[in-house]
Amino acid sequence: MLFNQNDTIIALATPHGTGAIAVIRLSGKNCFTIVEKVFFTKNKKAVNLQSKKSHTLHFGLICVEEIIIDEVLLSVFKNPHSFTGEDSVEISCHGSTFIQQQILQVLTAKGARMAQPGEFTLRGFLNGKFDLSQAEAVADLVHSNSAVSHQVAMQQMRGGFSSKINILREKLIDFAALIELELDFSEEDVAFADRSALKNLIHSIQSILEKLIQSYELGNVIKNGIPVAIVGKPNAGKSTLLNILLQEERAIVSDIPGTTRDIIEDEITIGGVLFRFIDTAGIRDTTDVIEQIGVNKALDAMQKSAIVIYLFDAHELSKQDLIVETEKIKTHIGNSQLLMVCNKIDTENLAELQSEFSDMHPILYISAKNHLYIDDLKNKLVALFDNRAVHVTETVVTNARHADALRKANSSLYRVVEGLNQQVQTDLLAQDIRYALEALGEITGSVTNNDLLAHIFSKFCIGK
Amino acid sequence: MLFNQNDTIIALATPHGTGAIAVIRLSGKNCFTIVEKVFFTKNKKAVNLQSKKSHTLHFGLICVEEIIIDEVLLSVFKNPHSFTGEDSVEISCHGSTFIQQQILQVLTAKGARMAQPGEFTLRGFLNGKFDLSQAEAVADLVHSNSAVSHQVAMQQMRGGFSSKINILREKLIDFAALIELELDFSEEDVAFADRSALKNLIHSIQSILEKLIQSYELGNVIKNGIPVAIVGKPNAGKSTLLNILLQEERAIVSDIPGTTRDIIEDEITIGGVLFRFIDTAGIRDTTDVIEQIGVNKALDAMQKSAIVIYLFDAHELSKQDLIVETEKIKTHIGNSQLLMVCNKIDTENLAELQSEFSDMHPILYISAKNHLYIDDLKNKLVALFDNRAVHVTETVVTNARHADALRKANSSLYRVVEGLNQQVQTDLLAQDIRYALEALGEITGSVTNNDLLAHIFSKFCIGK
Repeated sequence: MLFNQNDTIIALATPHGTGAIAVIRLSGKNCFTIVEKVFFTKNKKAVNLQSKKSHTLHFGLICVEEIIIDEVLLSVFKNPHSFTGEDSVEISCHGSTFIQQQILQVLTAKGARMAQPGEFTLRGFLNGKFDLSQAEAVADLVHSNSAVSHQVAMQQMRGGFSSKINILREKLIDFAALIELELDFSEEDVAFADRSALKNLIHSIQSILEKLIQSYELGNVIKNGIPVAIVGKPNAGKSTLLNILLQEERAIVSDIPGTTRDIIEDEITIGGVLFRFIDTAGIRDTTDVIEQIGVNKALDAMQKSAIVIYLFDAHELSKQDLIVETEKIKTHIGNSQLLMVCNKIDTENLAELQSEFSDMHPILYISAKNHLYIDDLKNKLVALFDNRAVHVTETVVTNARHADALRKANSSLYRVVEGLNQQVQTDLLAQDIRYALEALGEITGSVTNNDLLAHIFSKFCIGK
Repeated sequence: MLFNQNDTIIALATPHGTGAIAVIRLSGKNCFTIVEKVFFTKNKKAVNLQSKKSHTLHFGLICVEEIIIDEVLLSVFKNPHSFTGEDSVEISCHGSTFIQQQILQVLTAKGARMAQPGEFTLRGFLNGKFDLSQAEAVADLVHSNSAVSHQVAMQQMRGGFSSKINILREKLIDFAALIELELDFSEEDVAFADRSALKNLIHSIQSILEKLIQSYELGNVIKNGIPVAIVGKPNAGKSTLLNILLQEERAIVSDIPGTTRDIIEDEITIGGVLFRFIDTAGIRDTTDVIEQIGVNKALDAMQKSAIVIYLFDAHELSKQDLIVETEKIKTHIGNSQLLMVCNKIDTENLAELQSEFSDMHPILYISAKNHLYIDDLKNKLVALFDNRAVHVTETVVTNARHADALRKANSSLYRVVEGLNQQVQTDLLAQDIRYALEALGEITGSVTNNDLLAHIFSKFCIGK
């Protein structure tokens, strides 16, 4: 059913709920005929949509048996000049949920079928409007919630990642051509392909693959937010700090009427980067973080984090205590970056504290309650992200499926290199190269199967 | 500021949140110039929107300083062929809240101003695209949540109510013309207007006015839901019944993917009519409804209701008890309609119960738990609504402001009739007629003032 392209699909394309307007989208061979059954001019005259030019707008009524459901604006898109590559109609109606529902009902009654999740994008892919990784980027773009994740998705949607993969594939195909040529003449035992040139080619491909695979670690945090754990003793001010970060962000958002968005607790975009604060509620209630760390949630939170903020009260810890605690923490944070933050400072004791702790792991001094130097902390968080030395202008893999395919391609190529070294038979080399090509082809969808497509598009929202 | 029409306004027009697409709407003299600053072809070429035909769609990019914010579809509407009557642009973008926010930000940075609530509709009104009662119907339409409220709003938006008011005004103007003529010749003491014909004319106007004023009682419940109180002893099954009604409705709604809507607890649309179940929690916990009714919430709920369902357990009340309770209830429900419902029946005792209670106030027999005869109850609720003998094809006043204006007009006319009877001076008659005309003019906005407009449009949603 997912791959039936003969019928006309319909879905609400705008977010659920009441708004000034809503948009209902149809696509498919018969979409004009179906819409014509319920769409009329304001004087209730029939309309021939097929005769309209593509990319034109038409005001009129959605009527069923003399009952006017709404005054609407119809956008007409003609095959192949639409998102799906098919004849398409978008109905811009009044944004009452009742009206949205009524229009969906009358059009399904006239022959449209409710779309599956991602079915519009699937049709666009199947009709060659874009490749699979671009299709996936559409979903990422819709769910992007920071400048960085947005830019990565945009680059991928516009084909940046695809062209990188295609270049790799072309190089591999050149290589494969040489190998296959040898196969054709295998009985004559000639070696057209210069083995050391072959190894160099594979090596250059692998170095690109490995860079892409490595980028996924970053891509994943870009997409899902950089995990940050705030740990510290119960009275260090963790909740106050978190609330201040959250409130500031919310205030910025709500400055612009009409854009207030549902903020997921503890997700904060700072400087265009999404940070996800891991729930360390388990830590907040313990009296000694470090002692309990081996058994409680804190260890888990710290290990899952890219950044660990260790927050302490300027008035509570002696330098000696702090040194001990710092060392304990460092043994637990693995590859995470440690950010030491001294809270509850005031302008009088700042210089004194700075001089006292000057020979330790670098420390940021703030007062969450009095909102002192919070911007410094934010800048530092963004800087720690940038320190990972990957600029988003480079291609970043954000999709687990792509990362898997890249790893598959890479290990196939690894076997090719081994084969070359061990001078295995050419047909075995050829097989591994084909595996690598297939793995890369899965990314852009030039090699695909129905199960894979069904899996990918089921994660889309309906209407996309 | 509300009435500044020289600038270009912008707002998100679709519901808040993430969806496949979102629509951002701009309107105003400079809207093409502003959008041109950030809208480019897919090859980043500049676009001259002024040169485009009205009602055309254009694919392209929203870019700021080389950063692509989104690939969008632009709808171009040229003055006066737009909702506002001004040059307008609708930007259909990917439905990420981040992208929505970015586009709003770049366009406000380029000179657009965030719209006030209802400001698009206000501009449409000020530019003579529709009158004030039609503008108000736009907001009603967006918030309509039942077939009936939807039809009433649609009729009003399409000018049904306005034309009724305009006919009344014309009749009054004819009358006024005759009176004013007498005023011109007042020194000669002539009476051009036949007094009994005048009285007849006023009488016919008043009978229409009164019908409209009466319709507001119904209009109000259509718009806000018909208030229904379910009362009865604690174990009568009130919550079970309410839950079953709610669940059924929810199931129907969720049959259609993409249309699930937020259902406000205890609001149920049955047969296209919205019923609002008044919270009778105060009743649910009392042991004897009737005894406490004078002092607790139940009395209040019953008096606010158009329909009172008295629910009782088939096995609990003797006929004598029931007669007593019924009489007590009837003394408390005022003008509400009483619906007696016997719960917890089974197929065996049904005939017996029906015969036992046959000489009482009509009783419906159901089993909420076993879902027996629930449809009968629903049909009965809808029938009670229809029994109010107003068909929605007639004009129904749903707006408190309109009802007030109609009452003002009516009492002015009442003074005119009195004046005619007491043969007061013609100039006093003329003054009351002017008051009546003014009141009617306030409905359609032919007579208006800034405070009134500000008040009306402040209740709209942003983007409408």
